Amino acid sequence: MSFQGEQYPGVQTPTVDSEGFRLNHTMLRIKDPEKALAFYTRVFGMQVLRRLDFEEMQFSLYFLARPEAGERVPEETAERTAWTFSQRGVLELTHNWGTEDQQDFAYHDGNAEPQGFGHICFSVPDLEAAQAWFDANDVTFVKRGDQGKMKDVVFVKDADGYWIEVVQADRMKGKGD
Amino acid sequence: MSFQGEQYPGVQTPTVDSEGFRLNHTMLRIKDPEKALAFYTRVFGMQVLRRLDFEEMQFSLYFLARPEAGERVPEETAERTAWTFSQRGVLELTHNWGTEDQQDFAYHDGNAEPQGFGHICFSVPDLEAAQAWFDANDVTFVKRGDQGKMKDVVFVKDADGYWIEVVQADRMKGKGD
Repeated sequence: MSFQGEQYPGVQTPTVDSEGFRLNHTMLRIKDPEKALAFYTRVFGMQVLRRLDFEEMQFSLYFLARPEAGERVPEETAERTAWTFSQRGVLELTHNWGTEDQQDFAYHDGNAEPQGFGHICFSVPDLEAAQAWFDANDVTFVKRGDQGKMKDVVFVKDADGYWIEVVQADRMKGKGD
Repeated sequence: MSFQGEQYPGVQTPTVDSEGFRLNHTMLRIKDPEKALAFYTRVFGMQVLRRLDFEEMQFSLYFLARPEAGERVPEETAERTAWTFSQRGVLELTHNWGTEDQQDFAYHDGNAEPQGFGHICFSVPDLEAAQAWFDANDVTFVKRGDQGKMKDVVFVKDADGYWIEVVQADRMKGKGD
C-alpha cells in the first residue's frame, strides 16, 4: 500500500478525473526583466526556457526552470514551448512593458498588507554554502538560518522584493510539532 | 551541445554555486483549511504530504503535491518531511488559526491592486475534459478556453480566490509572437 496522503477535514481521495494534472508553474510580475533575469539565472541557476511576447497587449512572459541533470530540453522552439508547459518547478515572470522606466513603480510582495501569496522556495544541497553564495552576490536577506524561531530556514528577497525561502531538505525532518 | 537557455539582457550562465538548487514550492495563505484541502485534493488530485503545526505561533502549514505515477512517497514521517522539501511542484498552504471563523476575512489574490503574484498553473492532459470536471465541481471560472484573446488558456479560482491557470501543454506550441 503506497502513501495515500495525510487525512484532515476536507481531504478527499483523488479520482481518475484529475489524472495527469501537474503543478507546472507560479507566475510573478516583475518590474525590470534585465534585473530579474540576472537574479534568477545567476543566483539560482535558472535558464530561460522560453519568452513569449504579446505585442498587442504589451507584455512578455519569461518561463524559467532549473533542468535536472540528464533532462534534455528540446532545442526546437515549438517543442520546447510544449515541454515547458509539461514540467514541474517552472517560474513564470510577467513583464508589462515600460514598468522598468517608472521610477516609483514596484510590485506588491504579498507579505505586507494586504497579505496573500507568501513566497517561493528553493531547496539546496548545503544551506551554509548557499548563504555564502547569496552574500557573495549581495542578495538581501529577510532572515538567515540562525535567526528567528525557524532555525535552518533562510529567506532572501529577489530583485522585485518577493520572498524566496531556502532550505536544505534533510534538515527539515524535525520541523513542526 | 544541450540547450543553454534563451539569451536576453541580464541572463547569465549558471555556475557550480547553484548546482542542485531546486524550485520546491509556492506558498499561499488560506482562510479555511477544510475548504482549501477539499478543493486541491478533490479538484486537482493533490495529496497532503505533510502538515506542520506551530502551536506557539498559532499557524499550520500544509504541503501538497501530486506525486507522479511510480514515485514512492515515504511512509515514515521524518523521511517524508525531508522528501517533501526535495521535490518540485509542491504547494504550501499556510493557515493562521482562527481566520476561518472571521466572516469578513479574505486574502488578497495579487491580481486586484496592489498587484504582484499572479497565479499558479496546472497542465492537464485534456483541456475540455478538465473544464467539464471543473463544471461538475462548481468551480468558478475567470475565463474559459474559448474566451478572451488567449485561446486554450483557462483560468479558475481556488477556494480563497487565487487564480489557477490550466493549460494543455501541446496546445501551447504556437503561443506568443
